Amino acid sequence: MLVLASRSPQRRAILEQLGVQFTVEVADVEERVEGDPRDLVTANALLKARAAGGELVLGADTVVVLDGAVLGKPRDEAQARSFLEALSGQEHQVWSGLVVIDGGVERSAAAVTRVRFRALAESEVAWYLESGEWRSRAGGYAIQARGAALVEEIHGDFWTVVGLPVAELMRLCPSLVLARL
Amino acid sequence: MLVLASRSPQRRAILEQLGVQFTVEVADVEERVEGDPRDLVTANALLKARAAGGELVLGADTVVVLDGAVLGKPRDEAQARSFLEALSGQEHQVWSGLVVIDGGVERSAAAVTRVRFRALAESEVAWYLESGEWRSRAGGYAIQARGAALVEEIHGDFWTVVGLPVAELMRLCPSLVLARL
Repeated sequence: MLVLASRSPQRRAILEQLGVQFTVEVADVEERVEGDPRDLVTANALLKARAAGGELVLGADTVVVLDGAVLGKPRDEAQARSFLEALSGQEHQVWSGLVVIDGGVERSAAAVTRVRFRALAESEVAWYLESGEWRSRAGGYAIQARGAALVEEIHGDFWTVVGLPVAELMRLCPSLVLARL
Repeated sequence: MLVLASRSPQRRAILEQLGVQFTVEVADVEERVEGDPRDLVTANALLKARAAGGELVLGADTVVVLDGAVLGKPRDEAQARSFLEALSGQEHQVWSGLVVIDGGVERSAAAVTRVRFRALAESEVAWYLESGEWRSRAGGYAIQARGAALVEEIHGDFWTVVGLPVAELMRLCPSLVLARL
């Protein structure tokens, strides 16, 4: 049985959608918060996967990058507003890293998707903040929920933005998905 | 109250995700199946919206286009297989049209998203066909379900591929979404 080393309900939903059976095991790790985005998400995915333990473990990590700066989870509504206003009308990048540990063998991959926000009206920012959806979301939005209304277009794998790069997972470890119908 | 003139569970899910309240009213219409994709989806969305009736009605239509040919819903598993094999490793287009009728005033929009499939292994095609998910899906796949595993990347609005161009909806009729928090 696969162990998912992540608290994220979004990552659980993606695995369920693919028909993968799994359990969740999360250990507290000291995540890196600075550095090259590809290195950052790969290193954090590895930390999480190693900390969870198990024969077959999947770790993942996601960051939102605007003009070279990593936007974490907003600490309050004021910061969420400043994130949304900075993202409005602009293109940013979402990086997701993926680590599979299978019988002690560690394999990793990472992917980036470009996301362009619509030019948001003040009423739209207010609507989104009022929903409370910005809480606990890297960059302050959730593309697979109300945040869909904020986005003009993406270029890349949609699931990388949600939190798990599915195309990379299929390349790295197809049997993890295909075996479980 | 908004009337959604569509049977599609995917379109219902998108409106629910956005927090929009609505009812569903569907009348049988003779949909167009040939012509320029933009004209086709706009005309069909309009047919559905007019047939449903109501003060505030939303109609939508989606087609999958590969090399200029519209791929409809596969009639059987053999045709679903031939669609998947044709889409494998290639880029195709998904067009979605949108019509809002508000107090007799008809407004329409359409959007296209480019979707590139991974080069599918025979085992992946077999896995997908076995899931039965190809049934009743334009082009024979559902990007928001197991079909996520088939897609390499997209360029455009993800929700256009699922069946409702959300960015266009926000441009055409933002109050429909913003008013309903």
